[in-house]
Amino acid sequence: MRALEDLVSLLTRLPGIGRKSALRMAYYLLKADQRYADALAERIAQLQSEIRFCSVCGSYTETDPCPVCDGADRDRRLVCVVEQPQDVLTIEASKEYRGLYHVLGGLLSPLDGIGPDKLRIASLVQRIRGGAAPSLGEGIPIPPVEEVVLATNPTVEGDTTALYIKKVLEREGVRVTRLATGIPVGGDLEYADRLTRARSFHGRMPL
Amino acid sequence: MRALEDLVSLLTRLPGIGRKSALRMAYYLLKADQRYADALAERIAQLQSEIRFCSVCGSYTETDPCPVCDGADRDRRLVCVVEQPQDVLTIEASKEYRGLYHVLGGLLSPLDGIGPDKLRIASLVQRIRGGAAPSLGEGIPIPPVEEVVLATNPTVEGDTTALYIKKVLEREGVRVTRLATGIPVGGDLEYADRLTRARSFHGRMPL
Repeated sequence: MRALEDLVSLLTRLPGIGRKSALRMAYYLLKADQRYADALAERIAQLQSEIRFCSVCGSYTETDPCPVCDGADRDRRLVCVVEQPQDVLTIEASKEYRGLYHVLGGLLSPLDGIGPDKLRIASLVQRIRGGAAPSLGEGIPIPPVEEVVLATNPTVEGDTTALYIKKVLEREGVRVTRLATGIPVGGDLEYADRLTRARSFHGRMPL
Repeated sequence: MRALEDLVSLLTRLPGIGRKSALRMAYYLLKADQRYADALAERIAQLQSEIRFCSVCGSYTETDPCPVCDGADRDRRLVCVVEQPQDVLTIEASKEYRGLYHVLGGLLSPLDGIGPDKLRIASLVQRIRGGAAPSLGEGIPIPPVEEVVLATNPTVEGDTTALYIKKVLEREGVRVTRLATGIPVGGDLEYADRLTRARSFHGRMPL
């Protein structure tokens, strides 16, 4: 059946969905309430028109600037630099961090032709210099950025990008930090790879 | 973001999709080509209007009768009885069986109020009596059904339903068989459950 086969082949393009999962989803959709199928279809088709990028931090948002950049309760002295827009949502979900964000839109990867000019690094420097900070209303002074937390993944590309940004920001007189790498909480020394173990020694903290 | 949250909560209704998978799928859709999202949305919305039930066998089809019931190359003396429409597609995928099908639309389950009248058993009897066989064209005689293969799953409900249908069909003078149960090919005696092992002894075959 072409209609079913077409749907299955479109579904298998989604991350983590193989042919068997796609078939199960298709069978479910065949038997499901048509209103559910319509709602799902509408959401999928309209997602990209409803969600865009925040002109300040570059994360996903429905309003511009995004609720984080616009939030009166956020600590404007802290900017967390992440690779992708969804990293903002991941960090927000943990409700640990109360500062602002800046999305790079990728990581340095010379082999793929991704240099610093392809990433949102210039706009980061501009924000630190106070050029692109969202207004807090007339007459309210915007506190300067005091610390940039580099939260790119601890991979070769993530580390390289973090080092590059650190060098760029050195001239701006801002404190640059990097998320701690080490044994995950609840993890096991035995199962951590050698590099993670080495890093956890390197980054050891007074107790 | 409401648009994202709505999509994620709709996606988690799909079988085998948890919140993390749904989020990954949503992020993919956010970055995907809009034409892909549109195609997927259209397929999902139109699936139920493009696929219906074959009036003869009850399986999913785009044309009525379905290509199997209408196929000149199928063995019309054999009818395989399955629980759900997708079972037909599963069996067809293995390209082992060349007979016809009959979909029950469920299994007997007195506790859930599903009695024989809720299943497509009467239409099965009618087919065997030659009442609902699809025409092969004018003047071509339709061969009578000689064997009914019961292919419901080897569960309590599947076995009960198979036994019930066997009793009903005994009066119709048709041969009734059941798919073999036993150790799966490539399986291991040690890992087969006791019931499967017992059935494999019961159904042992001369070599």
